[in-house]
Amino acid sequence: MSETVLEKLEGRVSYHDSVEEMLKRIRDDGLSSVFSRWDEQEKIRCKYCLQGLSCQLCTMGPCRISERAGAEKGVCGIGPDAMAMRNLLMRNIMGAATYGHHAFEAFRTLKATGEGKTSFKITDVDKLKWMCEKTGIDTNQDINQMAISLAELLDSELKINPDQKSVMMEAFAPKKRKPVWKDLNLYPSGIQHEVENCIASCLTNVDGDYVSLAKKALRLGVSTIYTAQIGLEMTQDILFGTPMPHEVDVDMGIMDPDYVNIAFNGHQPWIGVATLQKAKKPEYQEMAKKAGAKGIHIVGSIETGQELLQRFEVDDVFVGLMGNWLAIEPFLATGTVDALVMEENCSPPAIDQYAEKYQVALVSVSTIIGVPGTEHEMPYYPEKADEMADNCIHIAIENFKKRHGKIKPMVPKKVQKAIAGFSTEAVLKAINNDLNTLVDVIANGQIKGVVALANCSTLRNGPHDWNTVNLTKQLIKRDILVVAGGCGNHGLEVAGMCNLDAIDEAGDGLKGVCKALGIPPVLSFGTCTDTGRISMLVTALADHLDVDIPDLPIAVTAPEWMEQKATIDGIFALAYGAYTHLSPTPFITGAPDLVKLVTEDVEGITGGKIALGDDPIEVAKGIEEHIIKKRKKLGLK
Amino acid sequence: MSETVLEKLEGRVSYHDSVEEMLKRIRDDGLSSVFSRWDEQEKIRCKYCLQGLSCQLCTMGPCRISERAGAEKGVCGIGPDAMAMRNLLMRNIMGAATYGHHAFEAFRTLKATGEGKTSFKITDVDKLKWMCEKTGIDTNQDINQMAISLAELLDSELKINPDQKSVMMEAFAPKKRKPVWKDLNLYPSGIQHEVENCIASCLTNVDGDYVSLAKKALRLGVSTIYTAQIGLEMTQDILFGTPMPHEVDVDMGIMDPDYVNIAFNGHQPWIGVATLQKAKKPEYQEMAKKAGAKGIHIVGSIETGQELLQRFEVDDVFVGLMGNWLAIEPFLATGTVDALVMEENCSPPAIDQYAEKYQVALVSVSTIIGVPGTEHEMPYYPEKADEMADNCIHIAIENFKKRHGKIKPMVPKKVQKAIAGFSTEAVLKAINNDLNTLVDVIANGQIKGVVALANCSTLRNGPHDWNTVNLTKQLIKRDILVVAGGCGNHGLEVAGMCNLDAIDEAGDGLKGVCKALGIPPVLSFGTCTDTGRISMLVTALADHLDVDIPDLPIAVTAPEWMEQKATIDGIFALAYGAYTHLSPTPFITGAPDLVKLVTEDVEGITGGKIALGDDPIEVAKGIEEHIIKKRKKLGLK
Repeated sequence: MSETVLEKLEGRVSYHDSVEEMLKRIRDDGLSSVFSRWDEQEKIRCKYCLQGLSCQLCTMGPCRISERAGAEKGVCGIGPDAMAMRNLLMRNIMGAATYGHHAFEAFRTLKATGEGKTSFKITDVDKLKWMCEKTGIDTNQDINQMAISLAELLDSELKINPDQKSVMMEAFAPKKRKPVWKDLNLYPSGIQHEVENCIASCLTNVDGDYVSLAKKALRLGVSTIYTAQIGLEMTQDILFGTPMPHEVDVDMGIMDPDYVNIAFNGHQPWIGVATLQKAKKPEYQEMAKKAGAKGIHIVGSIETGQELLQRFEVDDVFVGLMGNWLAIEPFLATGTVDALVMEENCSPPAIDQYAEKYQVALVSVSTIIGVPGTEHEMPYYPEKADEMADNCIHIAIENFKKRHGKIKPMVPKKVQKAIAGFSTEAVLKAINNDLNTLVDVIANGQIKGVVALANCSTLRNGPHDWNTVNLTKQLIKRDILVVAGGCGNHGLEVAGMCNLDAIDEAGDGLKGVCKALGIPPVLSFGTCTDTGRISMLVTALADHLDVDIPDLPIAVTAPEWMEQKATIDGIFALAYGAYTHLSPTPFITGAPDLVKLVTEDVEGITGGKIALGDDPIEVAKGIEEHIIKKRKKLGLK
Repeated sequence: MSETVLEKLEGRVSYHDSVEEMLKRIRDDGLSSVFSRWDEQEKIRCKYCLQGLSCQLCTMGPCRISERAGAEKGVCGIGPDAMAMRNLLMRNIMGAATYGHHAFEAFRTLKATGEGKTSFKITDVDKLKWMCEKTGIDTNQDINQMAISLAELLDSELKINPDQKSVMMEAFAPKKRKPVWKDLNLYPSGIQHEVENCIASCLTNVDGDYVSLAKKALRLGVSTIYTAQIGLEMTQDILFGTPMPHEVDVDMGIMDPDYVNIAFNGHQPWIGVATLQKAKKPEYQEMAKKAGAKGIHIVGSIETGQELLQRFEVDDVFVGLMGNWLAIEPFLATGTVDALVMEENCSPPAIDQYAEKYQVALVSVSTIIGVPGTEHEMPYYPEKADEMADNCIHIAIENFKKRHGKIKPMVPKKVQKAIAGFSTEAVLKAINNDLNTLVDVIANGQIKGVVALANCSTLRNGPHDWNTVNLTKQLIKRDILVVAGGCGNHGLEVAGMCNLDAIDEAGDGLKGVCKALGIPPVLSFGTCTDTGRISMLVTALADHLDVDIPDLPIAVTAPEWMEQKATIDGIFALAYGAYTHLSPTPFITGAPDLVKLVTEDVEGITGGKIALGDDPIEVAKGIEEHIIKKRKKLGLK
C-alpha cells in the first residue's frame, strides 16, 4: 500500500485544532508549555540516556557505557544489556506500583462503601455477584457484606507471596496461558510482592543479567494485570456502573466560562464521582448561582475524565471530556477552569504559572500529588469523599468569584461527538452474548483482526496524537478493528475516530460490520487502566475458541507511549503473547542482545514480541502481516 | 587540631594491604575489576547526572536541566530541585524496598520455624518473649506458637496502611519523637505501603514539588527502620542468637586453599547458617575429606559474613570474615573459593570472569540474584533451607575437585583480630544494665559523644575504606565513641580498629572507658541492616534521659556510602533528628533549594541535618563541634 499519511503535519505541534489555537494564547501570554520546553530539550538530549546506557544508581557512578576500551561496563561491572534492561525494569516497577496504588484505593473504597461509610453505593450488583462467583465468595449474603468480602479478597491479592496462590490469576488468566506461564516461571505473586522483589533485584550489585531482569519484568507485567488492574476496574464498575456505549461530547468547546467549572484530572474517579453526585443536586447549583454563575459544570480531564465519560451521560452538569494530557496546559489557558482537582498523573509540575495567570485553584485529593502552586491538599479517605467533594465545590465557587469577569476566557469552538463506554459486557451485548458472531465476522474476513491500542501521547514521534490518529486510520482502512484505551483513546475521540461518521474511513469489511452493529470502527474502551479490561475481551475470545493468545489474529500498539505505566502494559502484552508495537522506541537501543531478545527471541518463548517503528503506514503494514499470518495458521483466508 | 591524615594514600587504591596485593594478581591475569573500571569511567562522568539534573523517566525526555534559557525545566515542567529530589527518592525507595524484601524473608523464616518446617530453631527465647511483650502478643503460650504470632504480626506491619496503626512504631519509636513525627505528618504506614505511595509519587507528572518529595523520603525512612529493619534484626536474633562480643578473625589470610571453602555473600544469613550447622557435622567434613580436602570451611563474605560473625565463634569450621564488598573480586582471585553463595547485594555483575579464571562456583539462593555465570540457582523457601545447604556443600565439594591442584592459590598472609558482636543488649551487659554508667562517662566528658557509622565502601572519595578508617581515627582521638555497622564496619575490623589494640589510638577519656570496660573504641554493631539496632541503643539513651534525639551529643556518619540502602538509612537519620554526615556528596548539587533544605532548613523541622565533606579531619571537626554544642545545651562541659 502506498497511501500518504495525513496532511496535517506541516507547521503543527498537535493534531488537534483547539490545542493549536490555545498554544497561540500561551505563547502570546509568555508562558512556557510542554510544547515549548520540548523544543529546548530537543537541543541537548543525552545520547547515552537515549540508548539506556547511563546509570546514576550508586556513588561509584554515574556511569556511561560506550564502545571505548574500558568503558564497556559500568564500575560495578554491569554490561550494556543489563544496564538498559535494569533501567527499563525500574520504569516498569514505577508503572506497576502506581497501578497497585490505584488498586489499593479502589479496594479500600469498595470496603468502606460496603461498610456504609461512604457516599457511594453498589451500583452494579450483577457484576459484584459475578466477581464473587469468579473468586469463590459466597453470593448468598447481603450485598454490602459481599462487597466487603470481595474488597478484602482483592486487597489480599495484591499481597500474595510465593507461599500462596493467587485467586485472581486462576479466575482470569487465559486457560491456555496458565501452563505456559507456569513453565516459564512467569506465574506471579501479587503486585506488591513482585514490585518489592523487582526493586531488590535492581539494587546495585544484585541482578546484572539482562535475561533474568527481563523475565522479572514479564512476571511483573502479568502480576499487574491480574492482581491489580482487572480487580480495580471491576471494582470501579461495581461502584459506579459497568460502561455501556453512549454518545458524549469531547474537546475544549465543552467549556462555558459562565459556569463554575470543576475539572477532575488523573486516573482515580472517587472524588470526581462524589462531586458529580453533589453537583446534580439543586442546592449546589443554587449555591453557584448565588455566586453569579449559571451553575456548576463538572468537566472530565484526561483519564479521570474518561472514567466518568464511560459511565455517565453528558448532560447539563457533566459536560464531557476536554482531551488528553498534552491538552492540560492549553485547557487551563482557556481561562474557564475554576478548580483542577488532581489525584494521579498526569498533573504536570509547571502548571502553577497557568493557575496564576488564568486563575485556577489547584486542588490535590491524593497524598501522591505534589504540584507546585497547589493551595488545597486533601489526603483521600473513602469516608471523607463526601466532605472532600463539598470542599471542591466551595473552592471552585470561590475561584469563580475571582476568575469570572477578570480573566478573559478564550474557548475554541470545537465540540466533537464520540461514543464512549465500551466494555467486554457492552461488546457481548452488541453481539447478543454470542461470541460466535464476532468469530464469524473475523472468520469470513470482514474483520481481519483486532488491535488493542493502549497509549499516552508524546511529542517524540511527531505532533501530539498525530501518530495515534494516523496509525488508527491505517488500521481501520485495513479492516482491523481498533479497541482503544488511555490518553491515545481520548486523542482518537477528539479526532472524531470514535463516532459513527468514522465508519466511512474503514475498509469495506469493517464498515459493513460497524453499520450492522451500529458501532464505530474504534471502540473507546476507557483508560490505560483498562488494559486489563481489554485483555478480558481477548481472553474471552481465546477461551471460547480454545486457542492460546498468540494464535489469535490480534496485536497491541502503543503508538505514543510516554510514561511508566505504559511500559508495564507493554511488557504485559509481551508476556500475554501479543505482537506489541511500541513507539517511540524505548531507551534500550544501546543494548543489542536485549533488543534481539525482545524483538525476536521472545517470540519463541511467550509467543509475543515487540515491534518498533514510528511511521504509521509501515507499522500498520507490519501489524497487518502479523494478523494475516495468524489467520493463515488458524486456516482462515 | 591540625593532625595530618594517615600516610597511606600515595599510589594506593585500597586501605588494605591484602586487597592491594590481590589487585596485582588481577592485573597480571588481565582481568578488569571495580578498581580498573573506576579509572575508565572517571574519564567520562556526566556532570548533569552528578548534579541530579538528568531524568530519563519518560519519552518526553531524556531531559537535562541547565542554566541555558529554556532548559531550566524538563519537558514536563519539573524544576531542578524536584528533579534531583525525585531521583534521590527513587534511590531511597530502592533501599527501603530491599530492606522490605529482607524483612519479608526473615518473618517468613521465623513463621516456618515456629511451624517446625525448617532446620532452624528458636535460639533466643528471651528475645522472642521480649518482642512479644513489646508488641502485645500473649507470652503464655508455646514458644513456637509465640514465634508464629510474632512473625504474623511483623509481616502485617510491613503492610500497615493509613487506615491502620503500626504496633512497631508505638513500641520502638523514641518517646519524644512520636509527637514530632505526628505533627510533621512523618508518622508512617508500613514499608510496603510507603514504598508504593512514594513510587506512585515519583511517576512522571505526579509529584513535582521538592519539599513534598523530601517529606515522603523522610516518612519512608522512619517506616523502613520501624516497620522493617528492627523487626528483621530482632527476628534474626531470635533465630540465630543475639550478638554478644567475642574475638574473631578477619581479612583474607583466613583462607586455606586445602579446604573446601564456601563463602556466604550478601545480607541474609539463612542458608549461611543452615550450611554452617551442617558443616559442623562430622559426616559432612568426612565427605570433603573423601574429595581430597582437609575439610569444609565456611567463610563470611561482606554483610552475610558479618551476620554470622556477630553470632558465631570463629573455629575450625567457621573461619571468619574476608572483608567488605570492594574486596570481593580480590577475594575470588585468591583461587581458594569453591562456592560463592549469594542472596543480596553486593553480588557484582562481572565476577563471571573471576569464577572462570579461578574456578569458583557461583550459587544463587535468592530469586533477586541474577549474576552472569551463576550456574546454580535455588529460590529461597524456608522449608528448603536444609536441602539448599546440602546442595551448597555438594556444589562446593565438586568445585574443589576442579580447583584444587589446578588453580594456583595466592593468599595474603594477613589475619586481623576484631571484637564483633555488639548489640544494645551487649552494651547494657557491659555496663551492668545500668544506662547511668554510660550517662556518667558522657556527662563527665570521658566520652564526648557517640557517632553511629553506617556505611558502604566506595572509591569516589579516595581509596577503598581510606575515608572510613581515617574519619574513625579522628573521632576516637577526640574521645568520641564509634558504633559501626555495614561494609564500613568490616573495613574498620580489617583495619584493626575493632580490637583492644585500637584503644591506644583513642583520646585519653575514651581510652580510660574502653580499658575499664574491656571494649574497643569502635564497637562492631554488625551490618548496614543494623542501623535499626544502633538506633535502639540511642533511643534507649534518649528515653532514659527523657530527652529528644536532637538533644543528645550524638551524630551519624556514612563516610563512604555507595548504594541505595545507605541513602534510606541516611534519610532516616535525618528524620530521627541526627546530625548526619554523608560522603560522597549525593547527586543533588544542581538543586540549590534542596541543598539548603537538607543541610540547613530541616534542622528547624526534624532537628537533624545533613553535613557534607570528604576530608576526614574537617568532618571530624564538624561532628565534634556539633557534639559540644549539644553537650552545652544539656549543661555539660
